[in-house]
Amino acid sequence: MRSMGAEKIAALVNTFGMSLISVSKEMGVQLSLVKSEVAQGVNTSGSCCAALVGVVGGGLQGTIVVMLDEPGFGAVVTAMSGGMIQPSLEDPVSMSVIGELTNMVSGRALIQSSLQGVDVTPPQIITGAGIRTIPTQSPGIRTFTLPFRVAQGGTLYLILSFHG
Amino acid sequence: MRSMGAEKIAALVNTFGMSLISVSKEMGVQLSLVKSEVAQGVNTSGSCCAALVGVVGGGLQGTIVVMLDEPGFGAVVTAMSGGMIQPSLEDPVSMSVIGELTNMVSGRALIQSSLQGVDVTPPQIITGAGIRTIPTQSPGIRTFTLPFRVAQGGTLYLILSFHG
Repeated sequence: MRSMGAEKIAALVNTFGMSLISVSKEMGVQLSLVKSEVAQGVNTSGSCCAALVGVVGGGLQGTIVVMLDEPGFGAVVTAMSGGMIQPSLEDPVSMSVIGELTNMVSGRALIQSSLQGVDVTPPQIITGAGIRTIPTQSPGIRTFTLPFRVAQGGTLYLILSFHG
Repeated sequence: MRSMGAEKIAALVNTFGMSLISVSKEMGVQLSLVKSEVAQGVNTSGSCCAALVGVVGGGLQGTIVVMLDEPGFGAVVTAMSGGMIQPSLEDPVSMSVIGELTNMVSGRALIQSSLQGVDVTPPQIITGAGIRTIPTQSPGIRTFTLPFRVAQGGTLYLILSFHG
């Protein structure tokens, strides 16, 4: 598989960030990028849940992770479900909201970046205490962390890793 | 994308389990499947680290997770590195051993199942306390959990989710 250039990857990271902001806004979640903490590499403080999807095809091979701390998780579940779902880390229905968000963001980002033939895996959802991602040591993999403040409270991290 | 039938998925789960056992054995880690606890759906007790890869192509869309508790993590890192790497959840080099294992298992399983044109994403590595996966609520996704006892101590979970 042909790997992507640095410029293409930077554009893609940007597109995913924009998609996250616009999808969230439509769902009633206001996110603002904490520009001072954007990191190449991984720089997340303790979160309690994560949803991961793999994206493969069209010269792309990577993973997208949405990670939230507890206030952020509560705010997103409440807003996206219109208050219909009680945020709970023990409840698969509540957790699946985060998977759905990750799916929607990936879908929109891939459409907007006009990448053809890209497939997205079903989201894998993980809970725990003090969750964080560890930067891979493999050469040729670039990882980016975009931290977002949630207006209702809390922090959401968007973590992208790509071959290229 | 054409989805897989139940039989094909069962065969694939089996192939991944066999690949995990054989790759681990070559690395000096003896694993035994805890047959009484094999679950369709997710059934992991608290782990401290997870490595995830996405696999897409050849009619397949899924994620593979290797998850370990602390004794299991210690045993795998020590055995795979021949005692050269000190197991530490704070150390990216130590964590990357688990990513490498997941990569190798996926690679071997895909070769053995003769699936053509399947791409694997770079592993995403996650640490935390009491990590577990949450079964997705989306229709059409099957998740399987294979728990393995590590001879040196601890538990390793292999979690597979597929569209189909």
